[in-house]
Amino acid sequence: MSLWGGRYSNQIAEGLYNINSSLSFDFRLYHYDIRVSIAHVKMLAEQDIISQSEKSRIVEGLKEINKELELEIKNKKFDYMQTEDIHTLIENRLFKKIGKTAGKMHTARSRNDQIAVDMKLYLKDVIRDTKRLLLNLMSAITQISKDNIVTIMPGYTHLQRAQPITFAHHLMAYFYKFKRDYERFDNSLRNINVSPLGSCALSGSSFDIDRKMTAEELGFSKIYKNTIDGVSDRDYILEYNFNAATLMLHLSNLSEEIIIWNTSEFSFIELNESYTTGSSIMPQKKNPDLAELTRGKSGRVFGNLMQSLIMLKGLPLAYNKDLQEDKESVFDTIDTIKAVLAVYPSMVKKINVNKKRMELACEKGFINATELANYLSRRNISFRKAHKLVGKLVIYVEKEGKSLTDLSLKELQKILPEYSECFDEDIYNYLDIKNSINNTDTDGGPSSTEITSKIDKAEKYIVKEQI
Amino acid sequence: MSLWGGRYSNQIAEGLYNINSSLSFDFRLYHYDIRVSIAHVKMLAEQDIISQSEKSRIVEGLKEINKELELEIKNKKFDYMQTEDIHTLIENRLFKKIGKTAGKMHTARSRNDQIAVDMKLYLKDVIRDTKRLLLNLMSAITQISKDNIVTIMPGYTHLQRAQPITFAHHLMAYFYKFKRDYERFDNSLRNINVSPLGSCALSGSSFDIDRKMTAEELGFSKIYKNTIDGVSDRDYILEYNFNAATLMLHLSNLSEEIIIWNTSEFSFIELNESYTTGSSIMPQKKNPDLAELTRGKSGRVFGNLMQSLIMLKGLPLAYNKDLQEDKESVFDTIDTIKAVLAVYPSMVKKINVNKKRMELACEKGFINATELANYLSRRNISFRKAHKLVGKLVIYVEKEGKSLTDLSLKELQKILPEYSECFDEDIYNYLDIKNSINNTDTDGGPSSTEITSKIDKAEKYIVKEQI
Amino acid sequence: MSLWGGRYSNQIAEGLYNINSSLSFDFRLYHYDIRVSIAHVKMLAEQDIISQSEKSRIVEGLKEINKELELEIKNKKFDYMQTEDIHTLIENRLFKKIGKTAGKMHTARSRNDQIAVDMKLYLKDVIRDTKRLLLNLMSAITQISKDNIVTIMPGYTHLQRAQPITFAHHLMAYFYKFKRDYERFDNSLRNINVSPLGSCALSGSSFDIDRKMTAEELGFSKIYKNTIDGVSDRDYILEYNFNAATLMLHLSNLSEEIIIWNTSEFSFIELNESYTTGSSIMPQKKNPDLAELTRGKSGRVFGNLMQSLIMLKGLPLAYNKDLQEDKESVFDTIDTIKAVLAVYPSMVKKINVNKKRMELACEKGFINATELANYLSRRNISFRKAHKLVGKLVIYVEKEGKSLTDLSLKELQKILPEYSECFDEDIYNYLDIKNSINNTDTDGGPSSTEITSKIDKAEKYIVKEQI
Amino acid sequence: MSLWGGRYSNQIAEGLYNINSSLSFDFRLYHYDIRVSIAHVKMLAEQDIISQSEKSRIVEGLKEINKELELEIKNKKFDYMQTEDIHTLIENRLFKKIGKTAGKMHTARSRNDQIAVDMKLYLKDVIRDTKRLLLNLMSAITQISKDNIVTIMPGYTHLQRAQPITFAHHLMAYFYKFKRDYERFDNSLRNINVSPLGSCALSGSSFDIDRKMTAEELGFSKIYKNTIDGVSDRDYILEYNFNAATLMLHLSNLSEEIIIWNTSEFSFIELNESYTTGSSIMPQKKNPDLAELTRGKSGRVFGNLMQSLIMLKGLPLAYNKDLQEDKESVFDTIDTIKAVLAVYPSMVKKINVNKKRMELACEKGFINATELANYLSRRNISFRKAHKLVGKLVIYVEKEGKSLTDLSLKELQKILPEYSECFDEDIYNYLDIKNSINNTDTDGGPSSTEITSKIDKAEKYIVKEQI
Repeated sequence: MSLWGGRYSNQIAEGLYNINSSLSFDFRLYHYDIRVSIAHVKMLAEQDIISQSEKSRIVEGLKEINKELELEIKNKKFDYMQTEDIHTLIENRLFKKIGKTAGKMHTARSRNDQIAVDMKLYLKDVIRDTKRLLLNLMSAITQISKDNIVTIMPGYTHLQRAQPITFAHHLMAYFYKFKRDYERFDNSLRNINVSPLGSCALSGSSFDIDRKMTAEELGFSKIYKNTIDGVSDRDYILEYNFNAATLMLHLSNLSEEIIIWNTSEFSFIELNESYTTGSSIMPQKKNPDLAELTRGKSGRVFGNLMQSLIMLKGLPLAYNKDLQEDKESVFDTIDTIKAVLAVYPSMVKKINVNKKRMELACEKGFINATELANYLSRRNISFRKAHKLVGKLVIYVEKEGKSLTDLSLKELQKILPEYSECFDEDIYNYLDIKNSINNTDTDGGPSSTEITSKIDKAEKYIVKEQI
Repeated sequence: MSLWGGRYSNQIAEGLYNINSSLSFDFRLYHYDIRVSIAHVKMLAEQDIISQSEKSRIVEGLKEINKELELEIKNKKFDYMQTEDIHTLIENRLFKKIGKTAGKMHTARSRNDQIAVDMKLYLKDVIRDTKRLLLNLMSAITQISKDNIVTIMPGYTHLQRAQPITFAHHLMAYFYKFKRDYERFDNSLRNINVSPLGSCALSGSSFDIDRKMTAEELGFSKIYKNTIDGVSDRDYILEYNFNAATLMLHLSNLSEEIIIWNTSEFSFIELNESYTTGSSIMPQKKNPDLAELTRGKSGRVFGNLMQSLIMLKGLPLAYNKDLQEDKESVFDTIDTIKAVLAVYPSMVKKINVNKKRMELACEKGFINATELANYLSRRNISFRKAHKLVGKLVIYVEKEGKSLTDLSLKELQKILPEYSECFDEDIYNYLDIKNSINNTDTDGGPSSTEITSKIDKAEKYIVKEQI
Repeated sequence: MSLWGGRYSNQIAEGLYNINSSLSFDFRLYHYDIRVSIAHVKMLAEQDIISQSEKSRIVEGLKEINKELELEIKNKKFDYMQTEDIHTLIENRLFKKIGKTAGKMHTARSRNDQIAVDMKLYLKDVIRDTKRLLLNLMSAITQISKDNIVTIMPGYTHLQRAQPITFAHHLMAYFYKFKRDYERFDNSLRNINVSPLGSCALSGSSFDIDRKMTAEELGFSKIYKNTIDGVSDRDYILEYNFNAATLMLHLSNLSEEIIIWNTSEFSFIELNESYTTGSSIMPQKKNPDLAELTRGKSGRVFGNLMQSLIMLKGLPLAYNKDLQEDKESVFDTIDTIKAVLAVYPSMVKKINVNKKRMELACEKGFINATELANYLSRRNISFRKAHKLVGKLVIYVEKEGKSLTDLSLKELQKILPEYSECFDEDIYNYLDIKNSINNTDTDGGPSSTEITSKIDKAEKYIVKEQI
Repeated sequence: MSLWGGRYSNQIAEGLYNINSSLSFDFRLYHYDIRVSIAHVKMLAEQDIISQSEKSRIVEGLKEINKELELEIKNKKFDYMQTEDIHTLIENRLFKKIGKTAGKMHTARSRNDQIAVDMKLYLKDVIRDTKRLLLNLMSAITQISKDNIVTIMPGYTHLQRAQPITFAHHLMAYFYKFKRDYERFDNSLRNINVSPLGSCALSGSSFDIDRKMTAEELGFSKIYKNTIDGVSDRDYILEYNFNAATLMLHLSNLSEEIIIWNTSEFSFIELNESYTTGSSIMPQKKNPDLAELTRGKSGRVFGNLMQSLIMLKGLPLAYNKDLQEDKESVFDTIDTIKAVLAVYPSMVKKINVNKKRMELACEKGFINATELANYLSRRNISFRKAHKLVGKLVIYVEKEGKSLTDLSLKELQKILPEYSECFDEDIYNYLDIKNSINNTDTDGGPSSTEITSKIDKAEKYIVKEQI
């Protein structure tokens, strides 16, 4: 039985029914919908719009329905194929339970404000969970970083060896990326924490409702200042979709690196077997499926963001049925992020780091060339000039199959005779990778002191947020 | 039991299992997967790679499994939560049924080529269905057009009344848009009709397989000329996603017009009640939900196209796990289009056309102004000059609250004295909307003769294609 | 002359040069790049990495170059076709001006951190401008709302007349949407206000640089805590692109309504002629081009957001050349928003409101049906029951070609005999549109008191922010 | 001077002018616009709508303007900042040149059909060029493949070494991907080759125009069968955008591989120096910028496709100003593809292949494991069983730090005692990589015979298409 139809002489077309029903996906909101109804009828009673005993009967009925639905869903006995939406389902069940008093529940409200407030309550819980899972990831990163403060590796630009860094330095870059994601989710609560309830269809109600009372009861800190805005606003869904997109973006970047590091050619890391899968044809394979899937799923989350923007484009106020399409995509994004974050942190934590291979990789590729240019520019050669001179040295050693440290002082002076007085024995201290890393005590740089202090702060941040 | 794991000492992590399993969505391919396996083992036997009796046992087992799965899915008893994918499920069941001979089925193939060929067979059926449903829509359009060959309405540009047309002329524009969609789907079979089977993991097999034999058995007209391309190609999925996007685009355009025409303000049409829904709060409402949902769902289909492009971006050859993400989005698009096309044609067919309102709308808005400019430019005034003169006349009549036909010959001559000899009694013939439409016998234009002939050809096209 | 090439034996290919050069779009950053260089060399001198006199020569040279570039660009004499990027152009010019000392400017920095800090300074200015323009729009909305506090119009859901509201109530919904946009832009400064300078290529420098000093000099409140994050972070660009997307979304919604209201059929408003354009063929046309272009340009801004996400997907750390593609799209978005907001507020302000038409539209469409249901549910009929009864009344009056207010008390009692005692003379007070609006004193609702108070607060907000 | 405005009393707002003018981007169509006008006036004269001498004057004037514009643009003297669009500019110039006869040119046409036909003519040329450039790329691939028919390398799945292939086999996979792109562009001509000219604003004209005549004159094979469709259809732009997107997708994939192969760790190839660039800070760097930019630019082309779909979503017929936004994005895509394809083929051709490293990479990673399983399954062990047994062998040899070929017959028999009789001396033939590749004579596989024949056909295809 639908919540409308008084003026209808015919049934709606079956095909329309099928495409129109949202119960198959909005049933996940049942608990929030019931909480909202309870808050609403409490207010109706408080405002003398319904009686106290009507309120009690409705509230009790709703609580029973909540328990029943919980059980049905848990036991996979919930049949979602018969009703227009979760609101209709609950009102219909209430009718069966308490009779016509159920018909008073929908006084001074509409499904337009109801679904909006349901979604906001749901998203509040989702964001709390997302944040918690994200902290696990951030924690996994600090843990593995802690074990790799002195693990030297080449820093890359353009996937070419560039300058020496440490594995901890590299990984901690992701810590800050995820921290920004964390804060973006947290920030988005600002717009979620505003209650649309009482906006009704679009223009409020001539009943003397108290929007602030329901807002408070449901834990919102504010109410929408305009009822038309209250039912049409979907910014908070866009914000969730966007924040999820940047999170998946950062995960796609880390996954790409894990995939590359885990190749035979790089061999910088080995994934724990439990986070890989095999091949049905090639017996030797251990594939980094989780990293690949995560990278692939970024497309899905980006697509969902795009979907929601496109759907909203060019719609007039206030409610249009198009808005029903806001849910499946954000639910898919929520489920995706939850599934990824449920397992990604353990994969990261259990990464087997091949420190030797990383260090070995620093020996080739002239990653101390910048240091050499810096050395020269400390001897009153302009950096631009020094950069060119080192370029020439690189050509030389490359031809000879040597590395920069292989050059003797004499050779250096011979190749660049005009600058012979610039080269001194101390040059080899500068060319040494470990020295060079620890000489770099730039704030935020790779030196052990710096990274240790940063990891320490990161851990404190996590602990603070976990409370 | 997975199809791999010989080299594994531990179980894979539960979270990885959850995110990795594709059975919850790829089970819809079971029938195709079985057809592929049957074709494959027939070929293996033909090539003496397995024996005839092994083939027979496998084929019979597979046929039984096919029936069982059909029943389980029909009766909603299919439990998809225990296995990695549909291939594994079927091979496992085969083991239970026929024992270790089942292990020979996977000789000289991989899930990489298997899933690709499954998808292609599935898409062939999907496209056949999509085309059939699309013909229904095209047919609905010709039918309603046929009833409205002389239904005059304003043609709009910028949603402003522009020039007089007929409702049939307007609707038939959509016929041609959907015809292009139809042809694009048809065209896409060219790339679908190429078999990847035998590409195995990526490089074919050292067994003496016959790729052409399986291709023929499965109804493909060609085979991939490169096995690495065979397992990595997803162009055909992108093509489906794109063709679906243009179809949904055209549906979004038509839906927007239906929504606008169906407003109280336009009142050009009234939707049949069965294709609208009501409101839980406003008893009077009959909302054009189907048109709105269709418009909204265009965002979803565009988003799915984007998702698949993003997922594929920057992947190296050959197979990467990211590719598993090609399915859910295209399935969602397929289901969306099917659900929309299952009901949209009847909605169109049953539209109640308010011919009077449409004709009335032609009286205001100066939609015969172009005709007036044409009239003058037939009198050796350049069109650009004529355009300006009519602009002035429009200002005049607008101020006076009149329409152009209200102007007497004298008034015309008085307002534009320099051009007084240009105005003649026959001007009113030109200004008459119906005359003007039928004077416009441009190929593809609104005149009855033209439209009748076009509808006639359209109907023949539909009949030809429906066979 | 490029800033590298010491190790190169050949010229780069012409085609690569063409596609690689960013000067044609990054020249707009010249002023920021020079400010950054000045801050950087001041710090170098302070830290004794270069001498005070070297610093002075460089700073003076840069200031001259700034003036020259300003002039060249203003007079369209700037030839951007000869150099790799703006950094190279400025360093090359500095060489010409002050000789080899110019070569010291690039000590302890890289283009990787330089471009990031340039962009952030630029975006700070852009956001300041965007916010200012957005306030103009918000102000235009409050102004026109103020004139329409008692302008009655139908509120729409599904583009069907739903419940009575006022034009001010409707427009103010947009005020709050744009206020959220405004706050999102403001919020995004949090991540912009962090300086990457000193991150150099990716790992900081072995020179004793002071990152906090340059950050302070340039007006940043923080520095990146990790140098690899400093050069690879593009979140702030994504945030701008997203915030711009929601703004354009809201503008697309308002534009759609303006286009619809401005049709002959609605005639709720008439756009001021200066914000419309004509047709080359139809002399009568006045098209709402600005609203249409704005709606259309939302696609562009959404596309730019998507482009930047896609470009970043799956990139390893730290800098990759792909990142160069972050600029053109965000510049296009910035220019689009600026162009739209430069003219949109005046269009809104000068809208000619057809109050009569709006009021007239309230008479048809049963928009007081909810009120009637409310009336009944005040008489101890449950709302759900009342909703159904009114549905029947609607069928009746629709058939009769009447409106609800046309029904006499007797008729009402006759149609619903079982509820005859529920109907009283006071029913006509409830059915009266104006009464019903002012009865609705829900917080955020359409009543004059409510809206007046909200507009008042909105104006105060604008004044506060404009300072 | 605009082409309209007769009815306007005021100037349009400056801000509207700025955002509305399309000349800054549509001037690139000048040549096509002039061709269209010439064809149009020829037809007008043929149909006695204008006189022969009027026609001659207009045509001559247009030809002069064409030459002038060509020169101005070539010499960068074209000032595009003063006029609404290219049509207005040309008509204004014609007025200056031949006086009021110019005003007859626009008889029986509108800018709505004019811009559509301009774009189609332009796209025909663009597609011809795109196809030519694409053939260069396909040719570069066949050339480098030809040199690498026996260059052994590991085939990868999940970026893990999977099975042995050859570099030619791998590269030729891209040949077929680009061939599909080539054919898609070619196919898209079908919809482009339909003339909208004569559709006028939307409904044709009451002048006796001959649409087929202009279509033929301009080289179109068909005309639109519905004039409203003629002015509103943008499918051909979407098709170009989509075809460009798949091309850029394939280029992004190849670029990713080039970047990875070119790392120090893989060292499979070395890019020719001329297709790399250096660093302003790190003297040793040679970065694969072209490959990175190409990968990055895929985001741009995908974004443009999305932009055009979004812009078109939900628009009513026929022309809306939003449609003006179809141009900049497709122009950007066209320019992007042209710039990439202008240089990418030479980069590919000049790749320096490190055959030794590729071969060496085959020795590790157990890429002959599938062959070993095949070997066993030829000895009546089911493939699934064989797969598991080899999994165990892999564990063994991995622990021992050996490769599969290092195992003696005795060792094999000892590890798998139950299957000892299955192992024979000939096993080493099967495990040999080169043998295994050449044993794989699957159609489309890596064997020299297969690849040689495929390259041969590819070359013939290119020659055939280049004519």
